[in-house]
Amino acid sequence: MKTDTDYKIIPNGTITSPLGFKAGAAYGGINKHARFNLDVSILASDVPCLAAGEFTTNKIKAASVLLCQQILPSKSVRAVVANSGCANASTGEQGHLDASNMASAAAAQVGARLGEVLVASTGVIGRRLPVDLLNSAISRINLSRDGGHDMAKAIMTTDTVPKEIAVEAGGFIIGGIAKGAGMIHPNMATMLSFLTTDAPLEQGFLSSSLKEAIDLSFNMISVDGDTSPNDSLILLSNGMAGGEPIRGGSERARLFQSALNAVCVHLARSVARDGEGATKLIEVNVRGAASMSDARITARTITTSPLVKTAVHGNDPNWGRIVVAAGRSGAELVENKISLDISGIPVVSEGMPLPFDADKLVAALKLPDVQINFDLGLGPYSATAWGCDLSAEYVSINADYTT
Amino acid sequence: MKTDTDYKIIPNGTITSPLGFKAGAAYGGINKHARFNLDVSILASDVPCLAAGEFTTNKIKAASVLLCQQILPSKSVRAVVANSGCANASTGEQGHLDASNMASAAAAQVGARLGEVLVASTGVIGRRLPVDLLNSAISRINLSRDGGHDMAKAIMTTDTVPKEIAVEAGGFIIGGIAKGAGMIHPNMATMLSFLTTDAPLEQGFLSSSLKEAIDLSFNMISVDGDTSPNDSLILLSNGMAGGEPIRGGSERARLFQSALNAVCVHLARSVARDGEGATKLIEVNVRGAASMSDARITARTITTSPLVKTAVHGNDPNWGRIVVAAGRSGAELVENKISLDISGIPVVSEGMPLPFDADKLVAALKLPDVQINFDLGLGPYSATAWGCDLSAEYVSINADYTT
Repeated sequence: MKTDTDYKIIPNGTITSPLGFKAGAAYGGINKHARFNLDVSILASDVPCLAAGEFTTNKIKAASVLLCQQILPSKSVRAVVANSGCANASTGEQGHLDASNMASAAAAQVGARLGEVLVASTGVIGRRLPVDLLNSAISRINLSRDGGHDMAKAIMTTDTVPKEIAVEAGGFIIGGIAKGAGMIHPNMATMLSFLTTDAPLEQGFLSSSLKEAIDLSFNMISVDGDTSPNDSLILLSNGMAGGEPIRGGSERARLFQSALNAVCVHLARSVARDGEGATKLIEVNVRGAASMSDARITARTITTSPLVKTAVHGNDPNWGRIVVAAGRSGAELVENKISLDISGIPVVSEGMPLPFDADKLVAALKLPDVQINFDLGLGPYSATAWGCDLSAEYVSINADYTT
Repeated sequence: MKTDTDYKIIPNGTITSPLGFKAGAAYGGINKHARFNLDVSILASDVPCLAAGEFTTNKIKAASVLLCQQILPSKSVRAVVANSGCANASTGEQGHLDASNMASAAAAQVGARLGEVLVASTGVIGRRLPVDLLNSAISRINLSRDGGHDMAKAIMTTDTVPKEIAVEAGGFIIGGIAKGAGMIHPNMATMLSFLTTDAPLEQGFLSSSLKEAIDLSFNMISVDGDTSPNDSLILLSNGMAGGEPIRGGSERARLFQSALNAVCVHLARSVARDGEGATKLIEVNVRGAASMSDARITARTITTSPLVKTAVHGNDPNWGRIVVAAGRSGAELVENKISLDISGIPVVSEGMPLPFDADKLVAALKLPDVQINFDLGLGPYSATAWGCDLSAEYVSINADYTT
């Protein structure tokens, strides 16, 4: 994202905005709390896609994740089928059969082969996929060029809004949807994101550009520090915009990277802002770090601190919690070098507390966007992370379930 | 703790139960929310003590912590002075002067030299110690043989109960007090613990036995994952029980270690149970780990998971969250080897969900003590960690402050 003019946001854009992609969704009755009465969805490309993905690092992996990891990277993905309401995780051998059957039903519906269909699930852990409900829903899905909006709705769990975007740059389009740390009782928060592009990409560049974009975006958000067995991010490139495959190092590669970063940052910020019970987005900008990993870990630790999150929730100008979260991050830190401002109001300079107008700071904390700008004063590295406040609503979403 | 008969709990025991220790407390008006109207306290020994301590790993360290680290380990500590209501952290050079003055006032009060007095503070970060209030309170403290009870009260912040214990074993006594993750607005949770013994200890054994006891106890508890710049644990040994110094490897050393472990585990469990907003103690027993560090990190990760903590709070038999927290701990884990029971009710065996009586499990989760027993099925190592549930009350304690 060197400049804003590198790419253009497409009004009402979504995952089916790039050429040659269609999607659709139906309701199978698997997610009893589906906000838009959709819980099964399919994304398909008219032609085979180059595809890469990033998946949960949890050692407990859902059947859908293991299925995708067997297929990816690939040069011939045709479709992604997704469901909410059941994670199909901790389900043993039966779970693998069920995920494979889900892929098979979707392949039949879109006219693809089995190894060309990826699967994503989110929902209750430790329960079997209701295969009949799922197959019935898949058979009712109609794909269309504006079906991306329905798919963005069908993957939601406790998300309150769908998350979608598309941008145009240099003659190609990138689209994306995501769901965030939503819960339906009783299950795990799961992050799913699907990205599409009609840009023609060289395979190595596809993977490296995806990695860079994720490191700047999805790997820099936190809602509650727990990771799901189902987290999945998939990028499909069908090349239908035409032209030579984009290779790393070129001007077109720079344009593509800039646009992909923008799409991923937008979706990741949307996920953080819509975290369970969240009322505010917290953006943490760290600079002056002695290394890139120090910059990242400092930013991430501040976004995950329950004490910072509750202070922001309560509009409490309690800057000590931010400083001390940085102090436990593991990053190199020297107390008399650090400086801190909150939403533009300086509170610490070179380790010493500054007098500040508490009313003004409280007013700034009441806004839906809170910025924490932390300078380690040690070196040239910087990083940005996003999180959300911690509210009593988070607790009630995740606790108020009894059988 | 080989057997319960190794040591005997002293009824109404506290930090002044060992021979030659006295303590006292007064109210200086520093902690406006002092539950027992006490906020400054002194512990003193009739004779110089061998002393060792463990302190916060946070790179931001309170002035009191830096002062103690300059003195310890030592063979001639006479007293510890503590205050609640002001952390004296992020206060720069002035903070160091204030901490030193606090030690100096206490030294005068008990007739010790400056380098013989340790300091501990807990409370608001980034504000100066109110030195006049502090000195006035110190001058009003009367030391007595049962003053440990007052000191246990004077170090409390949002703790709801004082935490103290003393045990007898092999002709000596070990006493201890602690305060937990309490808050007064607006500050950091801080863990303080002071331990005393009249057992004569060889210096090397003093340090190694303290390290072992802490690793089994205070290093295995979590309330919210944040660490304070003020965390301090100090052990004083005055040898007044008489006899030869206890050396590692002897039968007396084993007795001492067993008693010290019991004191530390009792205090650490009390801190976890009294975590902010907590309604339950969660004990996580991990066994079958491939290494000791795997056992410890698995147990600790489960106690810190917000999703596990909220599920326990809501009596939600949502075992998937426990399995998945273990899966992200970093420990070696193989899905089809793991087994799990919750308070004695098996829910997973070798990776597969078991049918269980949900009503019975909900009833077990409603008790004030919840046990999570997790078997990794990979090796001989085991560990226990303690935490607490996460309630809306935690959020309101930490958010509902405005200037």
